[in-house]
Amino acid sequence: MLSDIEIAQATKLIPIDQLAHEAGLTDAEFEPYGRDKAKVELDASRPDTAKLILVTATSGMPAGSGKTTTSIALAQGLKQLGKKAVLALREPSLGPVFGMKGGAAGGGYSQVLPMEAINLHFTGDFHAITSANNLLAALIDNARHQGQVELKEIFWRRVMDVNDRMLRNIVTGLGGSANGIPTEAGFDITAASELMAVLCLATDLDDLRARIDRIVIGTRRDGSAVTVQELGVGGALVALLKDAIKPNLVQSIEGNLAFVHGGPFANIAHGCNSVAATRAAMKLGDYAITEAGFGSDLGAEKFYNIKCRAAGLNPAAVVLVTSTKALKWHGGVPLPEIGKPNAEALKKGLCNLDAHVENLKRFGPNIVVSINHFHTDLDEELDIIRNRCAELGVRVALSDGFALGGKGAVDVARAVIEAAEDVHPLNFTYEADAPVMEKVEKIAKTIYGAAAVELAPAAAKDLKRLQDLGFDRLPVCIAKTPFSFSHDPKLLGAPKGFTLPVQRLILNAGAGFVVVTTGAIMRMPGLPKVPAAMSIDVKDGKITGLA
Amino acid sequence: MLSDIEIAQATKLIPIDQLAHEAGLTDAEFEPYGRDKAKVELDASRPDTAKLILVTATSGMPAGSGKTTTSIALAQGLKQLGKKAVLALREPSLGPVFGMKGGAAGGGYSQVLPMEAINLHFTGDFHAITSANNLLAALIDNARHQGQVELKEIFWRRVMDVNDRMLRNIVTGLGGSANGIPTEAGFDITAASELMAVLCLATDLDDLRARIDRIVIGTRRDGSAVTVQELGVGGALVALLKDAIKPNLVQSIEGNLAFVHGGPFANIAHGCNSVAATRAAMKLGDYAITEAGFGSDLGAEKFYNIKCRAAGLNPAAVVLVTSTKALKWHGGVPLPEIGKPNAEALKKGLCNLDAHVENLKRFGPNIVVSINHFHTDLDEELDIIRNRCAELGVRVALSDGFALGGKGAVDVARAVIEAAEDVHPLNFTYEADAPVMEKVEKIAKTIYGAAAVELAPAAAKDLKRLQDLGFDRLPVCIAKTPFSFSHDPKLLGAPKGFTLPVQRLILNAGAGFVVVTTGAIMRMPGLPKVPAAMSIDVKDGKITGLA
Repeated sequence: MLSDIEIAQATKLIPIDQLAHEAGLTDAEFEPYGRDKAKVELDASRPDTAKLILVTATSGMPAGSGKTTTSIALAQGLKQLGKKAVLALREPSLGPVFGMKGGAAGGGYSQVLPMEAINLHFTGDFHAITSANNLLAALIDNARHQGQVELKEIFWRRVMDVNDRMLRNIVTGLGGSANGIPTEAGFDITAASELMAVLCLATDLDDLRARIDRIVIGTRRDGSAVTVQELGVGGALVALLKDAIKPNLVQSIEGNLAFVHGGPFANIAHGCNSVAATRAAMKLGDYAITEAGFGSDLGAEKFYNIKCRAAGLNPAAVVLVTSTKALKWHGGVPLPEIGKPNAEALKKGLCNLDAHVENLKRFGPNIVVSINHFHTDLDEELDIIRNRCAELGVRVALSDGFALGGKGAVDVARAVIEAAEDVHPLNFTYEADAPVMEKVEKIAKTIYGAAAVELAPAAAKDLKRLQDLGFDRLPVCIAKTPFSFSHDPKLLGAPKGFTLPVQRLILNAGAGFVVVTTGAIMRMPGLPKVPAAMSIDVKDGKITGLA
Repeated sequence: MLSDIEIAQATKLIPIDQLAHEAGLTDAEFEPYGRDKAKVELDASRPDTAKLILVTATSGMPAGSGKTTTSIALAQGLKQLGKKAVLALREPSLGPVFGMKGGAAGGGYSQVLPMEAINLHFTGDFHAITSANNLLAALIDNARHQGQVELKEIFWRRVMDVNDRMLRNIVTGLGGSANGIPTEAGFDITAASELMAVLCLATDLDDLRARIDRIVIGTRRDGSAVTVQELGVGGALVALLKDAIKPNLVQSIEGNLAFVHGGPFANIAHGCNSVAATRAAMKLGDYAITEAGFGSDLGAEKFYNIKCRAAGLNPAAVVLVTSTKALKWHGGVPLPEIGKPNAEALKKGLCNLDAHVENLKRFGPNIVVSINHFHTDLDEELDIIRNRCAELGVRVALSDGFALGGKGAVDVARAVIEAAEDVHPLNFTYEADAPVMEKVEKIAKTIYGAAAVELAPAAAKDLKRLQDLGFDRLPVCIAKTPFSFSHDPKLLGAPKGFTLPVQRLILNAGAGFVVVTTGAIMRMPGLPKVPAAMSIDVKDGKITGLA
């Protein structure tokens, strides 16, 4: 079979003008970026009536779950069945693209295109966020340097869209007073910037401005909060984000409209594409297919409790992506053995599927399990999963989207159409105004299976400060490994009875949540021994090796 | 009078498709970025036969010289006279835009548009350079962390497109060995990245790749050089710069084609737009108008000795921008008094004009002095400048481009047409293969007026290393204050007899030159007491306060 990028480059793209016009967009509603991408600002009067479908997955494993591929395959499958299906996905980050994971625009015959552009700079949204984030950092430090503001603690960190462990903990301002004030500082990856979350949750430019003005950058010696509004630089940051807030329109291999916009990671941030993109997809399709990152304990939990609550969304159905490989991994099979027959390990790993289904049931929307089909799968293994789904009372279908595109996903599409026929109201995991730690405990105990939550000393200090500042009743955005329901990537399957260690509680007043880091999670990844960057090249003007 | 941004926003732009088609571009030769910008890749077979005109200026002063405004006015003036005049200018940097200087897209009725986009993210070229630069930094540190390369000294610094003094000198890799190796490091502004120079000098993708592979990132314990090629990551960097290398097409207020591409500062880098943009302008116009940053001692010197030499360009004429204000400043008048009549100070400042004319004569191309007209100018003051130009034997004309657009620059345009009629061969300041310090001395003594050059201990060490590595005969790119011919911004007029202190010699093997820093010049600016960011805002979806 051809590689992803070979399939992508062999596909003839519909010119973006034609794609937009055929979808009924007026010239005022889109601006082309190249011949195959556009920034879109749909007329506000368009109703957003599509049925919203969330795609999530069972717990992660090092090889990835195929969630984006399934999302795209599903949209293409619905198209095969004569439905208008529009995608709303996250933008890839340069960190993983040049690091370990590679690109994030689907795979095989279920990709969004142009995959090279989407995986690299795309329309510059991440760069706009990086710029705005770091301009704010420079303005904060300058105000201190000029003696205009006195900050005891600075919460605002710099960001960069790269995997660079050396930037996690740094000291800035060295070399004498002309070069600033020596300060402990650090960089997160851009996907973890509060501005990324703000951009993804903002409903319009005014809301963007209001959220930015609310950001708490640090505290004074008397303990009071200093906001962006007090610094008077919100306008400059909005100027940098003015175009980035508009969703990006591209297409699937089979010509579905696809909005690819916003890219917070689901392990270290809230894991959902922008509300603007989801709404745009809901304005243009019968079905809007959106994805939340990693397993349902991460992306789906935050999708429901943060994004749906904030934006008033009510999904009609949820697709839970799993595979024999993912379940075997959670049944204890090491990576090199994962493609080999092993019904026992698969059965052992079913507990992971059970727990995800149980969690998703509590939220309300009907569930379709989509089995990501590998050519190594045995029928008896697939039957093991099918049978368990029958026992759990959820629909199940096989997806061959990677190998066959939309034709490989018509069964999933049919199941989704059925599942989405009766829409259930959404049940949140926690009350909107409950104290932060009550929220964390609710999620830890009901979704993760923890017995208890333990605050590290720094987290206890953070909590006290949140209480003092009056931000202790915000929603929570938990940062946690995607490889386990717990904080420990080695606890496979459906671990129970563990104690979830909370390291820090980071106020994101503009995003409107508190980021809760657990276990050893870090918000700036590092590069592996052999980074993907080593394989990427340009030959005859074409990018190669991007996977 | 309206502000720059008000004038810009009141101008009806020609749609980019129409602009490109009317200029004879095929659809294959351009890609729209929005409705008013495009990336261009002209057919290589088009002849580049336009007469090339360089716009430079007398020495800087805090209020700016109006060089970009004059360049645009000149192009518009030539258009008034029925000539096809195409601009090739540098892209603004976000550092000055949010710092002290503000935007850099011209002023008044001589601007390139859309000025907001050009001054902010534009088509993402700076961001692409920042990404590639910092990916390389992360890959270098990762190779050290993984024990794959042993570096005694690392030359490669990180960059960011922001004014942030706190990032000049930092320590990275703190917090234990999982977070890297504690290392002294630092950030320059993106405009000073070697990759910026590489992008501006590369003739095509293959040349870009070859230059990147040649970059020396540091030395081993045995003193030998480590290159990007040895690291094996050149392909990934080219993938990030693949689109950035294409010139950006926009328009002047009066509809001239304008290529705005590449943005090295002239005080800390080589100060010229890309060779690709200059060549594109030469393919589409009768006249190609290009600009080099700051005074002729900086931008023009590097334009001739670095850019023209590398690219084989031979300008037909040079425009030297000056004003009563600039010359009064160099005659010793403080900034608040600069608009007031003061013929004596003006006469005193003429020595600055003399020295620039004398320098420019040596290079060969005919000179036109363009007086940037202010409404406070007295006729007798203008006559003082005109008379001196007559004595110096150079053409002179008044430019009212700011207030009147092209109509205000027809005299300059006529003088340029005349001056460009007989093209002189170019005389370089130094032989291509002379030793580095001989080159620095040549420039310091013949162009700056220095009596001697003195190496700081660090520079002497740098020189020894350049010799050891075999890079001691490259061209030199001198970093120096723009406010004086000397290294000391307080030495106004045409100082003589000073000793030029050289601080560092920084190898840029990919760009093909050695950066020579002098005096107290820093390659990462800081923010002023009241940054321009404080005035910038977005109202009703439109940017305000950008100047």
